[in-house]
Amino acid sequence: MIVRRNLKLKMILHYTWRQLAYYLFLSTSIVVLHDIYEIVIFNIPSYTIAALGTALAIFLGFKNDHAYDRWWEARKIWGLMVNYSRAWTRQVTTMVMSLDSHENEEIKAFQKTLVYRHIAFVNALRVFLRIKNTYNKDQSEMFEDDNTYADTKPFLSEEEYKIFCSQDNPPNYLLQQQGSDLNLAFRKGWLSDYRFVKMEETLVDFNDIQGMSERIKNTPLPRQYTFFSRVFVLIHCTLLPMVFVSELGWKTIPIALAVSFVFLALDLIGERTEDPFENRLEDTPMSSLSVTIETNLKEQLKESKINFPKKYEPENGIVF
Amino acid sequence: MIVRRNLKLKMILHYTWRQLAYYLFLSTSIVVLHDIYEIVIFNIPSYTIAALGTALAIFLGFKNDHAYDRWWEARKIWGLMVNYSRAWTRQVTTMVMSLDSHENEEIKAFQKTLVYRHIAFVNALRVFLRIKNTYNKDQSEMFEDDNTYADTKPFLSEEEYKIFCSQDNPPNYLLQQQGSDLNLAFRKGWLSDYRFVKMEETLVDFNDIQGMSERIKNTPLPRQYTFFSRVFVLIHCTLLPMVFVSELGWKTIPIALAVSFVFLALDLIGERTEDPFENRLEDTPMSSLSVTIETNLKEQLKESKINFPKKYEPENGIVF
Amino acid sequence: MIVRRNLKLKMILHYTWRQLAYYLFLSTSIVVLHDIYEIVIFNIPSYTIAALGTALAIFLGFKNDHAYDRWWEARKIWGLMVNYSRAWTRQVTTMVMSLDSHENEEIKAFQKTLVYRHIAFVNALRVFLRIKNTYNKDQSEMFEDDNTYADTKPFLSEEEYKIFCSQDNPPNYLLQQQGSDLNLAFRKGWLSDYRFVKMEETLVDFNDIQGMSERIKNTPLPRQYTFFSRVFVLIHCTLLPMVFVSELGWKTIPIALAVSFVFLALDLIGERTEDPFENRLEDTPMSSLSVTIETNLKEQLKESKINFPKKYEPENGIVF
Amino acid sequence: MIVRRNLKLKMILHYTWRQLAYYLFLSTSIVVLHDIYEIVIFNIPSYTIAALGTALAIFLGFKNDHAYDRWWEARKIWGLMVNYSRAWTRQVTTMVMSLDSHENEEIKAFQKTLVYRHIAFVNALRVFLRIKNTYNKDQSEMFEDDNTYADTKPFLSEEEYKIFCSQDNPPNYLLQQQGSDLNLAFRKGWLSDYRFVKMEETLVDFNDIQGMSERIKNTPLPRQYTFFSRVFVLIHCTLLPMVFVSELGWKTIPIALAVSFVFLALDLIGERTEDPFENRLEDTPMSSLSVTIETNLKEQLKESKINFPKKYEPENGIVF
Amino acid sequence: MIVRRNLKLKMILHYTWRQLAYYLFLSTSIVVLHDIYEIVIFNIPSYTIAALGTALAIFLGFKNDHAYDRWWEARKIWGLMVNYSRAWTRQVTTMVMSLDSHENEEIKAFQKTLVYRHIAFVNALRVFLRIKNTYNKDQSEMFEDDNTYADTKPFLSEEEYKIFCSQDNPPNYLLQQQGSDLNLAFRKGWLSDYRFVKMEETLVDFNDIQGMSERIKNTPLPRQYTFFSRVFVLIHCTLLPMVFVSELGWKTIPIALAVSFVFLALDLIGERTEDPFENRLEDTPMSSLSVTIETNLKEQLKESKINFPKKYEPENGIVF
Repeated sequence: MIVRRNLKLKMILHYTWRQLAYYLFLSTSIVVLHDIYEIVIFNIPSYTIAALGTALAIFLGFKNDHAYDRWWEARKIWGLMVNYSRAWTRQVTTMVMSLDSHENEEIKAFQKTLVYRHIAFVNALRVFLRIKNTYNKDQSEMFEDDNTYADTKPFLSEEEYKIFCSQDNPPNYLLQQQGSDLNLAFRKGWLSDYRFVKMEETLVDFNDIQGMSERIKNTPLPRQYTFFSRVFVLIHCTLLPMVFVSELGWKTIPIALAVSFVFLALDLIGERTEDPFENRLEDTPMSSLSVTIETNLKEQLKESKINFPKKYEPENGIVF
Repeated sequence: MIVRRNLKLKMILHYTWRQLAYYLFLSTSIVVLHDIYEIVIFNIPSYTIAALGTALAIFLGFKNDHAYDRWWEARKIWGLMVNYSRAWTRQVTTMVMSLDSHENEEIKAFQKTLVYRHIAFVNALRVFLRIKNTYNKDQSEMFEDDNTYADTKPFLSEEEYKIFCSQDNPPNYLLQQQGSDLNLAFRKGWLSDYRFVKMEETLVDFNDIQGMSERIKNTPLPRQYTFFSRVFVLIHCTLLPMVFVSELGWKTIPIALAVSFVFLALDLIGERTEDPFENRLEDTPMSSLSVTIETNLKEQLKESKINFPKKYEPENGIVF
Repeated sequence: MIVRRNLKLKMILHYTWRQLAYYLFLSTSIVVLHDIYEIVIFNIPSYTIAALGTALAIFLGFKNDHAYDRWWEARKIWGLMVNYSRAWTRQVTTMVMSLDSHENEEIKAFQKTLVYRHIAFVNALRVFLRIKNTYNKDQSEMFEDDNTYADTKPFLSEEEYKIFCSQDNPPNYLLQQQGSDLNLAFRKGWLSDYRFVKMEETLVDFNDIQGMSERIKNTPLPRQYTFFSRVFVLIHCTLLPMVFVSELGWKTIPIALAVSFVFLALDLIGERTEDPFENRLEDTPMSSLSVTIETNLKEQLKESKINFPKKYEPENGIVF
Repeated sequence: MIVRRNLKLKMILHYTWRQLAYYLFLSTSIVVLHDIYEIVIFNIPSYTIAALGTALAIFLGFKNDHAYDRWWEARKIWGLMVNYSRAWTRQVTTMVMSLDSHENEEIKAFQKTLVYRHIAFVNALRVFLRIKNTYNKDQSEMFEDDNTYADTKPFLSEEEYKIFCSQDNPPNYLLQQQGSDLNLAFRKGWLSDYRFVKMEETLVDFNDIQGMSERIKNTPLPRQYTFFSRVFVLIHCTLLPMVFVSELGWKTIPIALAVSFVFLALDLIGERTEDPFENRLEDTPMSSLSVTIETNLKEQLKESKINFPKKYEPENGIVF
Repeated sequence: MIVRRNLKLKMILHYTWRQLAYYLFLSTSIVVLHDIYEIVIFNIPSYTIAALGTALAIFLGFKNDHAYDRWWEARKIWGLMVNYSRAWTRQVTTMVMSLDSHENEEIKAFQKTLVYRHIAFVNALRVFLRIKNTYNKDQSEMFEDDNTYADTKPFLSEEEYKIFCSQDNPPNYLLQQQGSDLNLAFRKGWLSDYRFVKMEETLVDFNDIQGMSERIKNTPLPRQYTFFSRVFVLIHCTLLPMVFVSELGWKTIPIALAVSFVFLALDLIGERTEDPFENRLEDTPMSSLSVTIETNLKEQLKESKINFPKKYEPENGIVF
């Protein structure tokens, strides 16, 4: 997620220079052919591109609206993660209890296990989601973040960590473990039937959070829309200098380039925003949210501030 | 669902060549009539089609927006299927229990029955939804997937499978069976009153998933919109070469064809996206989701990895 | 609901011929006055109607988007009816029970009463909603469906049916009766406190379904929008031939008619789609959904297939 | 809420004559200055207003879409009021009970108190919401409805009514009273712990209904949008006759007036629709819904039809 | 939040004078260069900016729609705060109880603690959210409101207040304290298991409210959209006088300025609306809502009106 108000030119050119070079070359060629060699074959009236306007507006509007919707839904999902993480911790610390004061220590340790395993779940899901999709692997990125399952190690017992790493779906394994522990607490009498079910409901919320994230991760915006929007922007911007050249002469070059850049940017922004879990600068800020969650939960466990993770600081105006 | 970033020309032509041939013929005829035989009757000013722009934009925007909404809702519904399948399995394994350790084996078998019947339900619903609607049967498809009720056989007892096949609504039958088994567990004391109701609530979620899928399957986008959008694109693109011909001459042919293709594509993409359960390449990826669910659930049952289904691999960039 | 892919010309003309006749007469008159009598007073430049474009797009887009939203919401509501009907039946058959096996017959009969009364509720609500609003009564319809309260008779006791018919709000009466029966079951010990409340919650879902349907039925799209969209389409299409006449000559007639038809269709489709419970061909398919529900519920009650209602078959490509 | 299909000219002019007079005067002046005194300073080319089109479309579309959303949300909220009122009454009559048949009379009276107090709540909320906001007070209205707290008197005990009138937030007071009565019923043994909580949940739904209504009432559409849309329509329509005058001559007057009226109407309709609780003809029909609720609830209490309120009849095609 | 219907010119100029000065200078220069020095290099045809129209409409529409959505969602979240605050208070006063009348005083004091701590939570969240984001700090504001944690002091015990101030996330601390107190009440027998869980659910609602507010606060609208919309408005409005100058002469200055102002306003309004928790005049009215909540809750506790906070009065037509 970008937080600085102004984007740096360098960052913009990193992602657009190839196309801009093409449009520069194209409009220069057309101007040269038209004005110097007087080849008028590329000269077309303005209403030809006007006819494309409607279709282009629908495609580009579509792509950007739905890309943003995906991005914002991803952020909402991880917002729920924050909310329910806090709720889960409160429930663990206030609803799991024993009326026998001898068990106090045992209960405390048990509560800590449930909360730490949850922190592990949050980090595990982040790592699970940040594995790049094959169709996004070939793009070179200016900024990336580190994400490995080892981040969950401090929050799991050694044995659990080993099994965890061998699973097909590691985050789901942790939820299953939480369920087993609730079952255990119920059998020990630390949870009534009713509180057991209530806490299971909170686990279902985490199932939802994981599943909704996976949905966005594994389902790209329909390619039929994104592919054609790219193609039609190309067609439209290729026709642009042909429309401009007869009246504008050499001014065609800067103006066609400027207008092309606008359409190019519109298409590219949609393209970059649509996948919010690809370890890129437009990502949902899962790393910083993980830090927030860990801090909040440890505070709720009344741990000393020394144990808190380091505050997350944006670098280059980017929050991962 | 298409996952590859670029569509293949062959795939595009498979669905558009007939219309493109028409537009090629049309614009060639008009150019020939106008330039060679000097028949100017087809020559019309550009503002005639501009007047159509508004209406066309509304129709095409409408069709594509709502087609996508249907598609994305379908994907959301099946995302819920993933989430609740995992939750159901956790609930089965942690909430159905006996305090009498002699019943351990029996409980385990019972839990497996409930989970396997759920896998059967997932596959049954997929097959039920993939039966083509009569009004979609006449379209020839490049890619299709196999879907038969036999896929559910390994997950049901022989007797249950037989009754299942004879039902008017097979997936609903399985939910009814799950309900009966919960009733049984309650009578045996394996479920408290409260946990019984909680698990019944999860079954209601599956009712919702099935019903929402059926709604999208059985209710086409209002024909009044899709029919007229097709007709008005035809009118608009038929007028295009008449507008272009006087100024553009033979250049009318490539440019009218290009612009017509853009509108054609917009209309066709909407048409193809609107029905997400028709066993076509744009489908909700129910086959791959079924595999994911089966794998996750078996992992939650702690089955050996040998029993897991084969990983789903996209073919031709398509996930069914 | 229309299911056939192509609309019939006859159907389209039934609803538009009056307006088309007006536009035909109008454009012919203008062409005659302009070309033959050389009266140029009706000749106006094209940017006058361009200035109307923005406003017209907003009005027409508004009307169609919200008409569709109403229609789709109505369909969603009746989708919920399907889902919860199945859930209700499962709950009735698995959650109402007696541990005393002597009561088995009595319980069965009681369960059947609850399910049959629910089928009556579904049909009652359909009939209740299909009573035409006074402001829609003067439109002549090509196709209509029969809906009378007598459809509920087979599912109610004679006495209940009589009271039912005398009520101000018959469907709500049935829900009240369901509540009374749950109270009875609770007193008899067939329902625990907890299961009683759970089933009452399902009744609240039916309250919601009924209330949401009534909301759409009784609240038209704000007239300020639908009235002015009709008026402004009229103004726009009346100006059209005046813009075309000077350059197009007699070609004004077919082209103005075609363009007018597009706008006319856009407005009319919105007008027809906005009220989904008026016993018209664009209606929410409540009749066919009622048949589906009855079949599903009887199947869940394990009744013989002979008792099932006849499958619903679309006539003329229309499902009511 | 307006229900008649066609608006009366008188009603339209009541709200627009001032602005129409201005535009009539303006365009006449410009035509006179231009054609008679030959002052061409006001003559501008058409693309100057075309450049405004984009911005105007966004502003007007924004205003109308969100005004409608507010209006429709208000209607949905009051739809929930209908649904939950029926549910509350059913819950009161079936879930509050005593196993001691001596208390039958007492229970009946108690149930009636709870239901009548709820009718009072519905009416109280209506009156509370219809108090005009200070910034809407200076508009003169053609139609208004009577709303006073005295409407709740028949449904409350005398003492309760007195306290009710002295409260800062009267409807909220009634909900608090309902809660106290549930507490009482619980202490008397008429409600189990579980049913107590269930009914409290229904009260939370009423909190939501009240709070959501207050949100719409007290938060106008952001003034930055509504103010500028008014200003920009004024700028746009003031430029219109200057664009038309050179080519259209005296025809400028009717055509500029017609086009201005369209934009004026668009802006004004948004302005009127945005506040649905101001005792105006576009209001959410709370008065008629209150009558419906009272009738339904009395029917559920099996009261005689004589006690039912008079059916609500629309006057002048308006339902309040 | 602005409530007055008309904005003051002074307020508008405060935020736009810099840009307006630039456009005034620009268009004057171009007119002077073109008309006096006859430098025609800046003269470009109108279709160059028409080509930008599509892209600009998408960017500006996007920015304003989503800015408003954020603003309105923020308002909805704080509406929920109102609703659940009332519900929480009713639940505290009717569901926490002792059957031993000796404890009456103790219970009352305990109830007051829970309600007052909730008022503290509301104020704490307001203050927490109004801390300006670093990227919004450099904007000078005409109006601001005071927000300090000291506002919560009257509602917390001294000791709790001290710990509260030292927390990393103060509002979350208060919810954790509420949970601990519910646990205490449960152990004392003032809450049944079931009512305990119900009230914990209400606390989860407050977790949601806090988390949703934090989400909007900490996640700006994607900079890729807001940055480019600013840049493209600049490009578009810089080209405007070049288009106008050849035909309009000195009239270019007022008209270009007026049109530029419209686009400028559109962009700026979006920019200002998108962050609803920045202590600015467009803010969600959290200060006034806090006063409303405090008043309602004290009324529910039946406190004397003397204790009520002073009514919130808008100043300069602004409600904070």
